[in-house]
Amino acid sequence: MLATHTAATVNNGVNVEALLGAREALTAAPEAAQFRWRTTCTWMNGTHSRSTVDGFFGLGEEQRHKTEFAFDADHPELFASEDNGPTPVEYVLVGLGACLTAGIAAVAQHRKIQLRSVAATIEGTMDIQGILGIDGDVRNGFDGIKVTYTIDADATPDEIRALVAQSQKRSAVFDIITNPTDVMVEVN
Amino acid sequence: MLATHTAATVNNGVNVEALLGAREALTAAPEAAQFRWRTTCTWMNGTHSRSTVDGFFGLGEEQRHKTEFAFDADHPELFASEDNGPTPVEYVLVGLGACLTAGIAAVAQHRKIQLRSVAATIEGTMDIQGILGIDGDVRNGFDGIKVTYTIDADATPDEIRALVAQSQKRSAVFDIITNPTDVMVEVN
Repeated sequence: MLATHTAATVNNGVNVEALLGAREALTAAPEAAQFRWRTTCTWMNGTHSRSTVDGFFGLGEEQRHKTEFAFDADHPELFASEDNGPTPVEYVLVGLGACLTAGIAAVAQHRKIQLRSVAATIEGTMDIQGILGIDGDVRNGFDGIKVTYTIDADATPDEIRALVAQSQKRSAVFDIITNPTDVMVEVN
Repeated sequence: MLATHTAATVNNGVNVEALLGAREALTAAPEAAQFRWRTTCTWMNGTHSRSTVDGFFGLGEEQRHKTEFAFDADHPELFASEDNGPTPVEYVLVGLGACLTAGIAAVAQHRKIQLRSVAATIEGTMDIQGILGIDGDVRNGFDGIKVTYTIDADATPDEIRALVAQSQKRSAVFDIITNPTDVMVEVN
């Protein structure tokens, strides 16, 4: 009876053993750690496009997602568009929230903290005088982004804050947004 | 007969007059140009999350998309996850492709260039030794991103390249990825 109480298994659905195994394997074979993620984007009409996510390259060979994913993007009606999907910048916020949230689950599993619920609001502020070309001193992108988490877990507030901080430290999308990345654009 | 040839209307589905009107209106009322884009992210299990995009703030008041959009994100099976959606970094690539493509349509309309088809591949390279914490000198995000367009339009190759260059210059997501943005993460 004691055992069932003390051995209560923490399960956030993340296979930490497999991730630690992958880390060990890739330390020995760093060329397998070179990944290429991709999407294809097709113009539909106006500001409406459809993107698909399917294959990617990793572990030395071409890989496929279980299914192909498709995403419509558009501008809203207040920009005289048809609102067939979120705006492109909202997709960036989706990526940021998803990246930090997956990281929180993985770190919690590693630290044996049981999560009960994790929710976040991700909000980016933007002065659209930039993209409209009204003021050359205003940037096109976000002025800043604020992420606010509400987390219920078997942990102290300090432990929960530490979870979120560690997720930030290892987040790919957090890095992409907070640091510059070279983007080369070519026309065939 | 001459008239029908020379007066052929360029129509890429972008209402440039409305955008120019918006630019004029927002030049006179810059406070209306302050937008807030947002998403909410809910942890499902493991690395799987679901994000929704619905309301945003702009033109001085709360706005709504025509419908609520929902997006699953996850890690692929080779990371011992369930692949319930694209990875978070793939969402960033979707945002980049969609932003540049919408811009190309808008600039083409403004320049009276008829587009017939626009397609792009957006590919980001990443050494996952960063996110796995194997090598502290490797960044978590992309090493670089390459976007390759194939465009069929009533224009010369130089005019097409100029369209793409102008879209880049005004792209919110291109700016977000190529320049740093502050991200504040809080826990309630």
